[in-house]
Amino acid sequence: MTTEEMLVYTALNAWKLVTDRFDSVIAPLSEAQLQKQVAPGKNRLLYLVGHLTAVHDRLFPLLGLGDRLHPELDEIYITSPDRAFSDPVPAAALKQAWSDVNGKITAAFEKLTPAQWLEKHTAVSDEDFAKDPTRNRLAVLISRTHHVAFHTGQAALMK
Amino acid sequence: MTTEEMLVYTALNAWKLVTDRFDSVIAPLSEAQLQKQVAPGKNRLLYLVGHLTAVHDRLFPLLGLGDRLHPELDEIYITSPDRAFSDPVPAAALKQAWSDVNGKITAAFEKLTPAQWLEKHTAVSDEDFAKDPTRNRLAVLISRTHHVAFHTGQAALMK
Repeated sequence: MTTEEMLVYTALNAWKLVTDRFDSVIAPLSEAQLQKQVAPGKNRLLYLVGHLTAVHDRLFPLLGLGDRLHPELDEIYITSPDRAFSDPVPAAALKQAWSDVNGKITAAFEKLTPAQWLEKHTAVSDEDFAKDPTRNRLAVLISRTHHVAFHTGQAALMK
Repeated sequence: MTTEEMLVYTALNAWKLVTDRFDSVIAPLSEAQLQKQVAPGKNRLLYLVGHLTAVHDRLFPLLGLGDRLHPELDEIYITSPDRAFSDPVPAAALKQAWSDVNGKITAAFEKLTPAQWLEKHTAVSDEDFAKDPTRNRLAVLISRTHHVAFHTGQAALMK
């Protein structure tokens, strides 16, 4: 492995570790347990599952990696706060979506070369990317990895 | 900048963004506000500040980057749970330590080359590193960045 490949491999490994960690928190929980709020008046665990699934699903167009699997989740889990809807997606289906999205996006990540990781993402213009070349795919991967860790910190309060 | 340098620059930028974000949560808080728990029965914000400071301070020996600034924090904020001690370090001093440690460790990070980021950290043996070359400095940086994000998710519940 070259230095470049190893650097990318390390970042991708971190993504996997962090998503697996969130998964290990929510996988064993029952539907009733997923209804609990992480703290009084805060998001339910179920909402966090939907929110992370929708955010990861948006990575397909954002990183130019194909079509989304679950665009219908955005309105419930990104645009709206928790409890705006009365859980139109059953918990089991949501867990499945979380698993499907992560499996597919991670497989797409693994095909990218180091140079491709440094290409711009689709939400930045050529002009802005020229000014700030850190607005690349890798920065998005790292940012989304932190986002999972951020919410895992909240989910972990349920223990 | 070479591809290697850009990959490292992107990861280091993420570390700065995440530590700055935690900083922006705690910096404006009064001593009384830092006494609040992130959720009922959970860690106080003050403990999280001490905990992250101690964990980051341990990066100096772990990554072979010089001497620690605050080894005295470990017993209070890593080895022991919150409230085991009655806050021997005043909040203002703790905030200063957080700022000092991050300033010094980030400056040390900025001097490392891509090849040095892929060198083993000091807590792994040569033999184990040969088996798993992802046990390098970069993996530690990424892991600690997630750790900050994890606790920032908890601190953000106070809003």
